[in-house]
Amino acid sequence: MKDEFTFDVRVYYEDTDAGGVVYYANYLKYIERARTEAINSIGLSNKILKDQYQTFIIVKSCNIEFHKPAKLEDKLKIYSNIEKLNKASFVMKQIIKRNSESICEAIVELVTVNSNGKPVKIPELMRDKLIK
Amino acid sequence: MKDEFTFDVRVYYEDTDAGGVVYYANYLKYIERARTEAINSIGLSNKILKDQYQTFIIVKSCNIEFHKPAKLEDKLKIYSNIEKLNKASFVMKQIIKRNSESICEAIVELVTVNSNGKPVKIPELMRDKLIK
Amino acid sequence: MKDEFTFDVRVYYEDTDAGGVVYYANYLKYIERARTEAINSIGLSNKILKDQYQTFIIVKSCNIEFHKPAKLEDKLKIYSNIEKLNKASFVMKQIIKRNSESICEAIVELVTVNSNGKPVKIPELMRDKLIK
Amino acid sequence: MKDEFTFDVRVYYEDTDAGGVVYYANYLKYIERARTEAINSIGLSNKILKDQYQTFIIVKSCNIEFHKPAKLEDKLKIYSNIEKLNKASFVMKQIIKRNSESICEAIVELVTVNSNGKPVKIPELMRDKLIK
Repeated sequence: MKDEFTFDVRVYYEDTDAGGVVYYANYLKYIERARTEAINSIGLSNKILKDQYQTFIIVKSCNIEFHKPAKLEDKLKIYSNIEKLNKASFVMKQIIKRNSESICEAIVELVTVNSNGKPVKIPELMRDKLIK
Repeated sequence: MKDEFTFDVRVYYEDTDAGGVVYYANYLKYIERARTEAINSIGLSNKILKDQYQTFIIVKSCNIEFHKPAKLEDKLKIYSNIEKLNKASFVMKQIIKRNSESICEAIVELVTVNSNGKPVKIPELMRDKLIK
Repeated sequence: MKDEFTFDVRVYYEDTDAGGVVYYANYLKYIERARTEAINSIGLSNKILKDQYQTFIIVKSCNIEFHKPAKLEDKLKIYSNIEKLNKASFVMKQIIKRNSESICEAIVELVTVNSNGKPVKIPELMRDKLIK
Repeated sequence: MKDEFTFDVRVYYEDTDAGGVVYYANYLKYIERARTEAINSIGLSNKILKDQYQTFIIVKSCNIEFHKPAKLEDKLKIYSNIEKLNKASFVMKQIIKRNSESICEAIVELVTVNSNGKPVKIPELMRDKLIK
């Protein structure tokens, strides 16, 4: 995960709205899928974090800029990078592109919490894998 | 609930797709909202059923016919009736209309289950209220 | 498309609800994605049908039975078959499975319409490809 | 619209995820509903803007902070205010609360564009109504 993680999505009818473009909230679904697959790519998963570490990753804030609208049948690529790694939180930058064109760009602040929603340290193993 | 229960929804961008109409799966969201409010209207709720009766209402089948497309900013009315009441299940007929025009019509089969997903009798109190 | 078309989906947080399982309406999103990819697999697309044939495929009815709930991180496979091919409509049977277990099964009636929503003959080329 | 606009939403199953809380992207649906109703409250609508002014309101950016999770059956109130009014754009601050508790807070930058997506001046009538 030291390197950029890329993930593909395809725009289906469910993602679009009557404006003929992807509904703005649905880009947040796309980037959450990408984060899930990024976690999977380092041998972890939301399930493992929950079952073995009683830890959940929650979104604390999301700052998203919309550059160009994506359309039905578009093939999009999501580029995800870790920008900052703190004790109980980390920041990801996620860019959605159609070929070389930027569709939108998000800065997402994520926090690791226990089942009561209290911040807890990022599990050692996860930290190691996020750095490597 | 012996009588028809009516519930209003408004079509927002989130509900529509690039065809300019409500996305077909989203009608199932509308009728689930109506069923939730119907349960609330008889003094119950999914939460009460869960906490006091360890009972959940799940959808076993849904047979939906699409008559006319609903559009952005439409005001729709959902008419819900209980068609059949069995020991551990019941059937609702739900019609979505724009004024007098039928948008779609669904027959929904619902089952009461416990936390393991096993069918259980409809709680007495709920049955009483569904009949009255 | 004479043969069964299979398509994979992964269950993400966006698909689930507070019951811990996939929200019932979201299975309709999954099967629509599968239908879209099935059309793509025979060298067509909703876009081509619209631009070259002024034809749209709309859902007339959907009869869906829910067998088992799908859960977060499940890998599902959708099996789609054409059951019946009429002049201006066709019927698809779509089954969602987790391994060999049936999650749900839908019979979907689709109609080809023009931009005014009037039924039109299935374009010759599309019919040929659906049969082959 | 000089004054704060308030709008109520109810949390249904469709809004929640397997974490038992409202899925983070769905708060963007709630605040879009509130913006739509705010526009309606001043005697305008997306439809009027489109038909009479060939103008569309699109979201340029959204900066959202999540404070507390909302849960199934919660009754939420959305407080919307115009923070800044420019020639072809405006900024809204939207806060979602459960009673006095802040669930999340968003700063949304909106731009008025023509059908080609090019920024255009906010129509005079709309500007007047936003100020009053």
